[in-house]
Amino acid sequence: MTDPSTAHATVQTAVRTALSTQRIETPSWGYGNSGTRFKVFAQPGVPRDPWEKIADAAKVHEFTGVAPSVALHIPWDTVDDYAALAKYAEEHGIALGTVNANVFQDDAFMLGSVTHPEAAVRRKALDHLFGCVDVMDAIGSRDLKLWFSDGTNYPGQDDIRERQDRLAEALSTVYDRLGRDQRLLLEYKLFEPAFYSTDVPDWGTAYAHCLKLGDKAQVVVDTGHHAPGTNIEFIVATLLREGKLGAFDFNSRFYADDDLMAGAADPFQLFRIMYEVVRGGGLTPDIAFMLDQCHNIEAKIPAIIRSVMNVQEATAKALLVDRDALAAAQRSGDVLDANAVLMDAYNTDVRPLLAEVREGMGLAPDPIAAYRRSGWQEHIAAARVGGTQAGWGA
Amino acid sequence: MTDPSTAHATVQTAVRTALSTQRIETPSWGYGNSGTRFKVFAQPGVPRDPWEKIADAAKVHEFTGVAPSVALHIPWDTVDDYAALAKYAEEHGIALGTVNANVFQDDAFMLGSVTHPEAAVRRKALDHLFGCVDVMDAIGSRDLKLWFSDGTNYPGQDDIRERQDRLAEALSTVYDRLGRDQRLLLEYKLFEPAFYSTDVPDWGTAYAHCLKLGDKAQVVVDTGHHAPGTNIEFIVATLLREGKLGAFDFNSRFYADDDLMAGAADPFQLFRIMYEVVRGGGLTPDIAFMLDQCHNIEAKIPAIIRSVMNVQEATAKALLVDRDALAAAQRSGDVLDANAVLMDAYNTDVRPLLAEVREGMGLAPDPIAAYRRSGWQEHIAAARVGGTQAGWGA
Amino acid sequence: MTDPSTAHATVQTAVRTALSTQRIETPSWGYGNSGTRFKVFAQPGVPRDPWEKIADAAKVHEFTGVAPSVALHIPWDTVDDYAALAKYAEEHGIALGTVNANVFQDDAFMLGSVTHPEAAVRRKALDHLFGCVDVMDAIGSRDLKLWFSDGTNYPGQDDIRERQDRLAEALSTVYDRLGRDQRLLLEYKLFEPAFYSTDVPDWGTAYAHCLKLGDKAQVVVDTGHHAPGTNIEFIVATLLREGKLGAFDFNSRFYADDDLMAGAADPFQLFRIMYEVVRGGGLTPDIAFMLDQCHNIEAKIPAIIRSVMNVQEATAKALLVDRDALAAAQRSGDVLDANAVLMDAYNTDVRPLLAEVREGMGLAPDPIAAYRRSGWQEHIAAARVGGTQAGWGA
Amino acid sequence: MTDPSTAHATVQTAVRTALSTQRIETPSWGYGNSGTRFKVFAQPGVPRDPWEKIADAAKVHEFTGVAPSVALHIPWDTVDDYAALAKYAEEHGIALGTVNANVFQDDAFMLGSVTHPEAAVRRKALDHLFGCVDVMDAIGSRDLKLWFSDGTNYPGQDDIRERQDRLAEALSTVYDRLGRDQRLLLEYKLFEPAFYSTDVPDWGTAYAHCLKLGDKAQVVVDTGHHAPGTNIEFIVATLLREGKLGAFDFNSRFYADDDLMAGAADPFQLFRIMYEVVRGGGLTPDIAFMLDQCHNIEAKIPAIIRSVMNVQEATAKALLVDRDALAAAQRSGDVLDANAVLMDAYNTDVRPLLAEVREGMGLAPDPIAAYRRSGWQEHIAAARVGGTQAGWGA
Repeated sequence: MTDPSTAHATVQTAVRTALSTQRIETPSWGYGNSGTRFKVFAQPGVPRDPWEKIADAAKVHEFTGVAPSVALHIPWDTVDDYAALAKYAEEHGIALGTVNANVFQDDAFMLGSVTHPEAAVRRKALDHLFGCVDVMDAIGSRDLKLWFSDGTNYPGQDDIRERQDRLAEALSTVYDRLGRDQRLLLEYKLFEPAFYSTDVPDWGTAYAHCLKLGDKAQVVVDTGHHAPGTNIEFIVATLLREGKLGAFDFNSRFYADDDLMAGAADPFQLFRIMYEVVRGGGLTPDIAFMLDQCHNIEAKIPAIIRSVMNVQEATAKALLVDRDALAAAQRSGDVLDANAVLMDAYNTDVRPLLAEVREGMGLAPDPIAAYRRSGWQEHIAAARVGGTQAGWGA
Repeated sequence: MTDPSTAHATVQTAVRTALSTQRIETPSWGYGNSGTRFKVFAQPGVPRDPWEKIADAAKVHEFTGVAPSVALHIPWDTVDDYAALAKYAEEHGIALGTVNANVFQDDAFMLGSVTHPEAAVRRKALDHLFGCVDVMDAIGSRDLKLWFSDGTNYPGQDDIRERQDRLAEALSTVYDRLGRDQRLLLEYKLFEPAFYSTDVPDWGTAYAHCLKLGDKAQVVVDTGHHAPGTNIEFIVATLLREGKLGAFDFNSRFYADDDLMAGAADPFQLFRIMYEVVRGGGLTPDIAFMLDQCHNIEAKIPAIIRSVMNVQEATAKALLVDRDALAAAQRSGDVLDANAVLMDAYNTDVRPLLAEVREGMGLAPDPIAAYRRSGWQEHIAAARVGGTQAGWGA
Repeated sequence: MTDPSTAHATVQTAVRTALSTQRIETPSWGYGNSGTRFKVFAQPGVPRDPWEKIADAAKVHEFTGVAPSVALHIPWDTVDDYAALAKYAEEHGIALGTVNANVFQDDAFMLGSVTHPEAAVRRKALDHLFGCVDVMDAIGSRDLKLWFSDGTNYPGQDDIRERQDRLAEALSTVYDRLGRDQRLLLEYKLFEPAFYSTDVPDWGTAYAHCLKLGDKAQVVVDTGHHAPGTNIEFIVATLLREGKLGAFDFNSRFYADDDLMAGAADPFQLFRIMYEVVRGGGLTPDIAFMLDQCHNIEAKIPAIIRSVMNVQEATAKALLVDRDALAAAQRSGDVLDANAVLMDAYNTDVRPLLAEVREGMGLAPDPIAAYRRSGWQEHIAAARVGGTQAGWGA
Repeated sequence: MTDPSTAHATVQTAVRTALSTQRIETPSWGYGNSGTRFKVFAQPGVPRDPWEKIADAAKVHEFTGVAPSVALHIPWDTVDDYAALAKYAEEHGIALGTVNANVFQDDAFMLGSVTHPEAAVRRKALDHLFGCVDVMDAIGSRDLKLWFSDGTNYPGQDDIRERQDRLAEALSTVYDRLGRDQRLLLEYKLFEPAFYSTDVPDWGTAYAHCLKLGDKAQVVVDTGHHAPGTNIEFIVATLLREGKLGAFDFNSRFYADDDLMAGAADPFQLFRIMYEVVRGGGLTPDIAFMLDQCHNIEAKIPAIIRSVMNVQEATAKALLVDRDALAAAQRSGDVLDANAVLMDAYNTDVRPLLAEVREGMGLAPDPIAAYRRSGWQEHIAAARVGGTQAGWGA
């Protein structure tokens, strides 16, 4: 029989190891300007090109130690020489990660991209997706993330079912183009920018398509892309059980796809999600943990650092759940005890633990404070003058 | 080239044929008392046993001509001699239809039925499901409809993923028990009575289970079981495309699972759903069109007649959509024209057409008025005195 | 005793009169480009200045006969000479209507306008509002419509209650500046662009402020600005009862503030709203009936014509409700009959009636077809080349 | 200048005082059986009459020290001798608190109580409300809490506006009957059991009525009675600013009015609400802090103890917010810092602080454990056998 204190120490070690080896990918576009349809407010020091975005992403990793890669968005991050971009990233201590395709901003895509009624437009969209795989090949990226804004605004506008046929054909074509170690990650979203029907509106649709495509096709859960009242952790548990969870896009929301900092709107929900990840064996490199956020009014780099920390805190709490006690209470049908075991972990203040983990990694215990002390914000505000700031949106 | 007026006549004939051969199954429990957790209000003349429910269901068919079967709910409709019950129905001009299992009202099922943590409780639930198949065998029913209230009220209460394992095992066991021409219809529901997690909360979950079970397992769409903002017709189109739509439970709602008369809350939505049914080839006997409603404060039989009529009107409008014009507008990317073609059908007053169809079937043109003239309501109010009214709920 | 057929004829005359004298104001910005945060798609022929917007608005009135004014948005519609603009409108057969203030696109307003923590920013916002009243004075406008994007994205970002104090002060200051026959119309909205708290999020907040301001302050109901499940017609009935309904911003939505064509997403809801307007005596010039929509992917002028027609159809159905029969059924507690009386009006195809009304006004019976025949769309597509199209958004 | 450590000690003392003097009222019906429309599951030891409910409520106070009163629900808690009931409560160390009226379970109220179309039914409802005030007089209760299930299920069923007239008349009549130190607390709820329109659906409606009634009429915020996405703390802040917040009904929900344990579904929301209470000066006896919950599947007494503790923890965190630092960050427009100050308090583990507070009050630090050790649960399970358990619902 194991000595309880030894067991406790073992758990603690495992928790610390898990926390120090966690990997959270940050989005290149999160460093640029963003906004709503009403206004994009510019901020000082915002990057003007992919190189500057990478420099910012490197800072997030420098102070958190768990954000060693940055996701690209094509064509926002188009450069002439991707090998040079990858080398640049490496020199800054990070890697280029997931490639995100953008088939929603070309004028041709007003009524759809891969599901557009016209074959010529669909071809144009496919060509863009192939180009994204080319970028992956060039930078050694594993994952192609596909989110389609495709849908309709009015009943009758297009045939819902034919659009599924067109979608299936496009996905299959792209899937066939993937290299042996490359994956297709399919993201769903309830609505916006399409307001009546969306072609991949829910996890069921993404799952059904991925199932037909094969093992290299996986579903992406963006935590802001659900109808009100949706139990997201149920979806996470289900997709893990089905072997079809490929990635997360973390962010938080009060209403729709608000793209606020992860954990800012409902930290308890983020904890419940991370608990299902831990419980389902999902804390592995096979699941890509990414942020996908818009820092419309707050400073971008510290907002991303805060988001990384929020994911870390939710993960720490999830790791601290006493799984044996929980299972015992669940088996006995003691609703209150089972809930109490989970809440006990959630109510724990894990910030001291994470500070220790950071110190063990040679980092400052408070990444936000360290970033502020670093002078980087002042540096970029002064240096990045002139030119056009990177941004996205209308 | 076809003469336009001939083409029009052909369409009209097809529409009338489709409307006169449509089949809508009514629910035995819809004739009984129902209510909310706050109160069940009793109504005069409500049936006191399955036989009286069948007599009421027969009246709905007598005046509408399109409701030739009634669904049973076990154990609410338990009788000693099912063959006699089936014969009684036949004598009244209708058939017994789908068998609905009830594994949510036995005291043992407080924390779940087929997903309960205890094997003994799961066994008890399975035995009930087997009993339902026995009833199907006895009455010659094709469809076993399974809705599970299983879920949890509090985070941590039970293991979300293990409950899926238990569910999969139970479904598989029941599936194996089905006869060659019998089907398992799996219904999903967002929430209620479980308030944190529900074990079959959405179409994706039902679909994933049915896919593994096999061809005889199909998904049921209850129009009141979705999160706010869910595009139900998209789900209908998708399930038809996948060959996995087995049945509808029609009703309407403004908020949650209000179980109001079909078409009462959002007639345009019901039309859009029926359009996808028609467009997807779903107006066949392979799809069971059922009502599942609670007439808490309105007279039950006329409410069911009204619901049947509302489904008919939505179907008529869906059949009247000019599919060629719609396809042409969709192909050309004319958003307004495509929408206008659909709305043109929706804005048509189809009540005269349906009155004609009814007269062609030898029925009165206004089923509600005919029912009122029949004196049935006065008869049952006077005759069904004493005994305990059938009802459901807490 | 009145002869029934005479009574019927009287009702019909009243309905036709009401329909031919209805007034719906169209929004200048609806003629310009719009979109989502993801993309604004440009369309050919879109106006490049307020003068061209007015020309387009005049076309809508020319073909519908019930859209005799156009609302301005300042600073989008800023011109040097407002008297000239008003004269230009008059020459085109329409008037300038409501003045809409825009205090959400200046860089200073990132964290708020009239509720901003800094007094200097609040002053700047107030100055803009005063400028809007100046425009009203110049063009003889009655109504100042105020919608504030003010709010916060994160809990703690600002003090919710102090923002109310600041709001109250600003409203009071503007109210005092109004002329004797001018009104302040306060619009509420659940969320967007603020994602955590919005300073005027619901009708209760707008009502409470208007009550304190006085008789010239009234609430605006934008049909797309509510939480899911909100009964908008209840709010309309309540505000009419309180004498505090000042105006409508019509549009429709499936999810959030989608700004689709009025009546496109839920025509039954629009009918219910118009029924409460009619029943509450709101079909008067004291209530401003405006459209506020974004035609992101459909042709703008015909989309606005369609929206006007949709409002007309809902109004016609509302006017056709047999109020005596409804009241009788309601008094007797006959739920089904009362509902049937209302649905009977809704299910009526009022398009022939409206065609007749139009012909009685000397108009073509089908405004969309007439607009298309007019050649205006081809004219503006050819003429409005070069320059910058009007638009709004990020 | 104050020494920081002295200031800190002062804050700590104030926090402890606030926590030890907090008052949370528990609901008599929370100790009884409850359920959904699908099933009420009975539990062992559940009270069979008001006296036994009081004994249970006394236990909650015994172990928490902050639940010194129990709310009654009439007629569920009808007794012959209210003075004796009050004395019984006093002997058990608690007081009788708010009187809740129930005008939703009598057969006469199927279509409404105070808003029913028939005057005789309205009179019956009013008589019941008068009876409730009689009970208040008898037991010395300050608050009459009114929640009306009144509403309609179908459009057209009744006249929305006339129902407001009837409501206003009834409220005014009851208000006039109140004693000098008695209050009328008006509760709103979005929906259920009415599914189309509810006569008091939102805070705006309750506020408008209370405003007209006078100072003794105040609004009740039930945390489960809002549309999805509603910012409840905004409503709390607004009502406090208006001097119209009278009471809370705490509970939590994931979907609709789930009536789960307070703080169980969204503890961060409960914290934000309590922060606005603290910030708005609402932590006074003028605001009644009540629970209103249904423990359908969990043991009732410990569930109520847990709920009390959850409210305490949210209050403690709210009290710990560094208001000066928050105000400074807000004034400077530092979104991230302001949010961080609030989150710092939320992320604090306040359970040790509350354990200390309890020990300072002479209580066990863990009320749940203490209750379990007490043997009360075993006692009531053994003693309360025979008779009919108290319960509510259909």
